[in-house]
Amino acid sequence: MPKKNVLIIGAGGVAHVVAHKAAQWAAEFGDLHIANRTRSKADAIVQTLRDKGHDMPFASHALDAMNPDEVEALIRKVDAGIVINVGTAFINMTVLEGCIRAGAAYIDTAIHEDPAKICETPPWYGNYEWKRREDVERAGITAILGAGFDPGVVNAYARLAEDEYFDRIDGIDIVDINAGSHGRYFATNFDPEINFREFTGTVYSWQGGEWRENRMFEVGREWDLPVVGKQKAYLSGHDEVHSLSVRYKDADVRFWMGFGDHYINVFTVLQNLGLLSEQPVRTAEGQEVVPLKVVKAVLPDPASLAPDYTGKTCIGDLVKGSLDGKAGEVFLYNVADHREAFEDVGSQGISYTAGVPPVAAAILVARGTWDVRKMANVEDLPARPFLELLGDMGLPTRAIDADGDHPI
Amino acid sequence: MPKKNVLIIGAGGVAHVVAHKAAQWAAEFGDLHIANRTRSKADAIVQTLRDKGHDMPFASHALDAMNPDEVEALIRKVDAGIVINVGTAFINMTVLEGCIRAGAAYIDTAIHEDPAKICETPPWYGNYEWKRREDVERAGITAILGAGFDPGVVNAYARLAEDEYFDRIDGIDIVDINAGSHGRYFATNFDPEINFREFTGTVYSWQGGEWRENRMFEVGREWDLPVVGKQKAYLSGHDEVHSLSVRYKDADVRFWMGFGDHYINVFTVLQNLGLLSEQPVRTAEGQEVVPLKVVKAVLPDPASLAPDYTGKTCIGDLVKGSLDGKAGEVFLYNVADHREAFEDVGSQGISYTAGVPPVAAAILVARGTWDVRKMANVEDLPARPFLELLGDMGLPTRAIDADGDHPI
Repeated sequence: MPKKNVLIIGAGGVAHVVAHKAAQWAAEFGDLHIANRTRSKADAIVQTLRDKGHDMPFASHALDAMNPDEVEALIRKVDAGIVINVGTAFINMTVLEGCIRAGAAYIDTAIHEDPAKICETPPWYGNYEWKRREDVERAGITAILGAGFDPGVVNAYARLAEDEYFDRIDGIDIVDINAGSHGRYFATNFDPEINFREFTGTVYSWQGGEWRENRMFEVGREWDLPVVGKQKAYLSGHDEVHSLSVRYKDADVRFWMGFGDHYINVFTVLQNLGLLSEQPVRTAEGQEVVPLKVVKAVLPDPASLAPDYTGKTCIGDLVKGSLDGKAGEVFLYNVADHREAFEDVGSQGISYTAGVPPVAAAILVARGTWDVRKMANVEDLPARPFLELLGDMGLPTRAIDADGDHPI
Repeated sequence: MPKKNVLIIGAGGVAHVVAHKAAQWAAEFGDLHIANRTRSKADAIVQTLRDKGHDMPFASHALDAMNPDEVEALIRKVDAGIVINVGTAFINMTVLEGCIRAGAAYIDTAIHEDPAKICETPPWYGNYEWKRREDVERAGITAILGAGFDPGVVNAYARLAEDEYFDRIDGIDIVDINAGSHGRYFATNFDPEINFREFTGTVYSWQGGEWRENRMFEVGREWDLPVVGKQKAYLSGHDEVHSLSVRYKDADVRFWMGFGDHYINVFTVLQNLGLLSEQPVRTAEGQEVVPLKVVKAVLPDPASLAPDYTGKTCIGDLVKGSLDGKAGEVFLYNVADHREAFEDVGSQGISYTAGVPPVAAAILVARGTWDVRKMANVEDLPARPFLELLGDMGLPTRAIDADGDHPI
């Protein structure tokens, strides 16, 4: 059987990791294509691939991914069997439509968002993606939603706990800590426009069988984690809380994001002054300006942080449940190192943890293991093949359970 | 002798106070004129005068005060005997030139600044104003520099200590505390563009007979002051340190500005992120924007703070010296109340303390007491008539000395 060609859509920090990881695992795929609205950014990624000595066939393309006709035409033109969508949050539905029409597998890493809304409210996957489930199944394509780290690997952790630890799951606490240091006064690890949007709205969690609402930074808890030690994390909203709450509806499902006091202070000042607003203000000179775009302009480019980034991330699931009526818990986690990520693919650890998993998903689709010909979130798919492959690809999973701290 | 007509240049918060106080003391003057680049702002002040029931003759004028020909022409047209310049810091030299040519007295409240520079460095008065001393004397006009509160009244406090307390002055510590509350998350009391410029450069003080340099917020000291109590203030640069260091060259002359921890935190975040920069940045969309102008646009208009402003200011000089070889010290000070200022002229206390003194100076020029027909800083002029008049006008002076805390 011929190898499937892969089309990567997007050319930001995560797309860079996806391209490099796909190139490292070139034996699994046919040709590699990178498409972006601004083609020069895709060209820049291709150049870094060549600089690293990769010699599989690459091509770059200009693509308006908001237009499903263009997406369909490009998939057909390059004969892509797998599309990895790591562009903006606004293009999921048009890219998925293109895949349905052209018969390609679809993989993304975050929920669709409407550019006109500041924050999407639950049920997140229910707002857009899951409405296309029947169309995906009818087309006979595989569509894997949320296949980054969180969502993505953390969903697989929950499924592994279901498969190998418990017959009943009572709680899933996802904890995401970046204990790394970029050496700057302040920076965001992703595009500030996306990064801050996560924190400016209401925080949703699934507790006691229903959605609970809190304000950002209202509920904090100190966690004592492997390698990174004691770290404070705050209840935050995140895509996977929705899909996990559907599969594990009797469990409390919460997402905890780590923030240092300095980050919270800077964020709070900017937020309270109105500088994170997406609504334009008018200067005394009459110029219309969106404050958030100015904040973005003065902050460091997230990609520029990579060479100096040191320290580690720890992301994991504390899963509580019971087996044969006996209560227990397991912490399934990965520790990633910023410097190792940079040496491997030229990116910092945050982009690395987000960009390697969709390539693992693509390999499993290519191999057939995950080519399920329907729409699936990661917890709907076998977890162990995914996690073992990720171990080979640079993101090993460990477990802390009754037997101590060990590889899975 | 006919009363002198007064021309106020500027139409900001301080100009508002100047206009109202001049109207309250209308018997001292002839007609009142207000000129501003945007005439509608001058009209708005005239309207508030009429709303308060003042019925002296007022007129407003459009004026480009950067053009000395226009300044001269307007002075001649309205037959102004006294010009009170409370416009931007960039117009001092052109307004002074207009006064020299047209033979009018000149009064200002702050040093001239070059719009192309971020911060002027010492010797401040020596950079621009004092270069025109001979021209002023030759023209036979009176030019009083820095006749606000600080500089201005605090210079008179130093002179009063010289006249009535000591034959040798060893130290002048000027302390400016605003213990008021505007009830907003954050606001500046003056135009943010001017306000922040004061703190973004090097801090200069006169100690041990020479200029010392520090960073802003590097040197702080807690002061225990009348009415406002214990307050932290930081060594800051200020115009009057220069002129006082020339008259009292053997004394240490320092200026201390009070800042709460919250103010410093917000300032520090904005400063470190680059959001106080006057250099344009380019957004991802290609728009050229000056960050400081966006910060200004999101902050409350300083004038809007007045109705809700509560609490008091305390500004004074701790003067150390000796008389007949016997060491001593005196603290000369004023306490002003934000709410009383609002009831008197519709402004908050910061604008009030800055705007009343130049009107007192104008009255003394009109009466002849200060009509010295040369260029003078306030410490060069008799202090007691100025301070006693200010007491009648709403800014009484008190002294803490060996006899306790009492009016001067």
